[in-house]
Amino acid sequence: MLQTINLGLKTNSYCIAIGDRGISRLGELLIAEKFKKDLKILLVTNPEVFLPYGEEVVKHLQSKGFQVRSLIIEAGEESKTQETIQRIHDAAFVQHLERGSLIIALGGGVVGDMAGFAAATWLRGISIVQVPTTLLAMVDAAIGGKTGVNHPGGKNLIGSFHQPSLVLIDPTTLKTLPSREFRAGMAEIIKYGIIGSPALLYHLEQSDSLSSQENIPSDSLKSILKYSVQTKAQIVMEDEREGSLRAILNYGHTLGHVVETLTNYNTYLHGEAVALGMIAAGEIACMLNLWTQDMQSRQKKLIEKAGLPLVWPKLPLNSVLSCLQGDKKVQEGKVRFVLPTGLGKVVIKNDVPKEMITHLLNRISGE
Amino acid sequence: MLQTINLGLKTNSYCIAIGDRGISRLGELLIAEKFKKDLKILLVTNPEVFLPYGEEVVKHLQSKGFQVRSLIIEAGEESKTQETIQRIHDAAFVQHLERGSLIIALGGGVVGDMAGFAAATWLRGISIVQVPTTLLAMVDAAIGGKTGVNHPGGKNLIGSFHQPSLVLIDPTTLKTLPSREFRAGMAEIIKYGIIGSPALLYHLEQSDSLSSQENIPSDSLKSILKYSVQTKAQIVMEDEREGSLRAILNYGHTLGHVVETLTNYNTYLHGEAVALGMIAAGEIACMLNLWTQDMQSRQKKLIEKAGLPLVWPKLPLNSVLSCLQGDKKVQEGKVRFVLPTGLGKVVIKNDVPKEMITHLLNRISGE
Repeated sequence: MLQTINLGLKTNSYCIAIGDRGISRLGELLIAEKFKKDLKILLVTNPEVFLPYGEEVVKHLQSKGFQVRSLIIEAGEESKTQETIQRIHDAAFVQHLERGSLIIALGGGVVGDMAGFAAATWLRGISIVQVPTTLLAMVDAAIGGKTGVNHPGGKNLIGSFHQPSLVLIDPTTLKTLPSREFRAGMAEIIKYGIIGSPALLYHLEQSDSLSSQENIPSDSLKSILKYSVQTKAQIVMEDEREGSLRAILNYGHTLGHVVETLTNYNTYLHGEAVALGMIAAGEIACMLNLWTQDMQSRQKKLIEKAGLPLVWPKLPLNSVLSCLQGDKKVQEGKVRFVLPTGLGKVVIKNDVPKEMITHLLNRISGE
Repeated sequence: MLQTINLGLKTNSYCIAIGDRGISRLGELLIAEKFKKDLKILLVTNPEVFLPYGEEVVKHLQSKGFQVRSLIIEAGEESKTQETIQRIHDAAFVQHLERGSLIIALGGGVVGDMAGFAAATWLRGISIVQVPTTLLAMVDAAIGGKTGVNHPGGKNLIGSFHQPSLVLIDPTTLKTLPSREFRAGMAEIIKYGIIGSPALLYHLEQSDSLSSQENIPSDSLKSILKYSVQTKAQIVMEDEREGSLRAILNYGHTLGHVVETLTNYNTYLHGEAVALGMIAAGEIACMLNLWTQDMQSRQKKLIEKAGLPLVWPKLPLNSVLSCLQGDKKVQEGKVRFVLPTGLGKVVIKNDVPKEMITHLLNRISGE
């Protein structure tokens, strides 16, 4: 059975469906969403996903009467370029996609971002359906309509907001996901618990393991996904275009981003760096008496249970400080930290004393 | 004095200001629109416009405290490419444009389209202000938020809807516009009269000449601009994303597009082809008893007064018919015509008998 969560926005709303073997019911979902049976569809996916699921999805959709063509792109960060967008646009042209046509993204965050931006900019915007197959994309990239392309000057500098018409999350597709990527996705899930969902924290704490899909009972995983998606959806509904609230999604990202940058993006996965960033943000919150050592140790236990790194890497203090200053999350020269204050609650602070950050970094770098 | 027209949309509204020497008041208008005084601005313009107006605008804005950098791009149709978008994005990066920053398009339709799309896709959308300097851009491209980039497979296949924060129309900038381009713009103005504005038709019929900026009294020209902008704004307000109503803007474009295509886009300017398309559409409307010969001759007189072509070129009938079938405005194999039915009134017909089109073409091609 598919569970559904509705994401309501000012100008449009869409459904996020979660359920095992969901991809075998994509056709019915599209028909329920009023897509016509002879719809032209371009399915964008990556090689790792096409073999286990893509071919099946294409056949399934064709059996329902849809006209489907697939395009396979590479899923790495290095594919987040205008050249990839151009390849998708070329395929859209060959497939004669019209205003009422559809692009489906089947894959992780890169596939979702690229297909989403291509859909946003083809014929001034056609429909996109997100079918995320990585844990991170399921709870983050596929929801909220953010698309992004890298510019030589920085990540995601090019992009647009383009909400999907439907998001379909099929947890069974996680079985082919490498464990390390599963764990990295779990970091963002823990983040959702801390910033907005005591219920999610409860489920995470109840679970014997969080480190791989096989070790989590199917129902438990579905609950965890549902609460994560609800948390993200709630934040997007309240702040569709990243006015201010959506900034709390950056919990763990301020120092996490520093770790990623100073290790040249080749040592830690994004989620692993976020885990380190959450621990550091928790420590700062403790120092400011915003949050308790007890809460901080509960956070650490979850991160540990997810098999994520706990120990801050040895990085030159000066580099960390100057990298912090250059972060996108800096406003008017002040570093913005999202800091936890309770179960499912955070505040944004841009007046954390520099000495406190230095003190913390000295302490944790030495661990 | 600046006249203003408000374009109200579901999620945002903006002001269209019209007035002589308006560009010397752009700074105040920006401040009135709540842009901050130390705002970072990228001004995108073309060489033909930069010399007479661009430098002055840059100095004016700098004198108001804005941080302005300009980028000069070529204004021809062949510049409507992803490479041009990339150049604007590179300049946006160098100028450190942030979420709250601004791009200003100072030029004709190509500059407006390129700067608009670059703004739509930089940091997922930053503000754009349109300052059109051609007659066509003043009454058409600058209003309504449509941006477009050409794809090797066709014109404007890539793009997005991105409404400007402000449109500033300064008729004095028309004095450097080549007369032929002025006349081509006038074709779209006549179109607005026919599809939606009896008041505009009245002003056009009252004017002794419509063929160049010098021959039209300044107040008359401003009235013509105002009624044109109002007509376009009204249609955009009722149909922001080209659902259906906005299709009436294609009046004259069905057969006009055929003329452009079959003469390889190198014989007629867009507006000239639209003039021919309007005459042909008027003839069809007469044959269907939708509109009178008297109205048709009034339309012809306006087109003649604007110095626009009246005689359909010699084109092979078969090519015309097959080109009509391939037009974007075809839906399910049926050619859509926008046909006039009265003063300021049109209908959309997709059941014009093929024989009638053939008959008409045989007749007018022989003239």
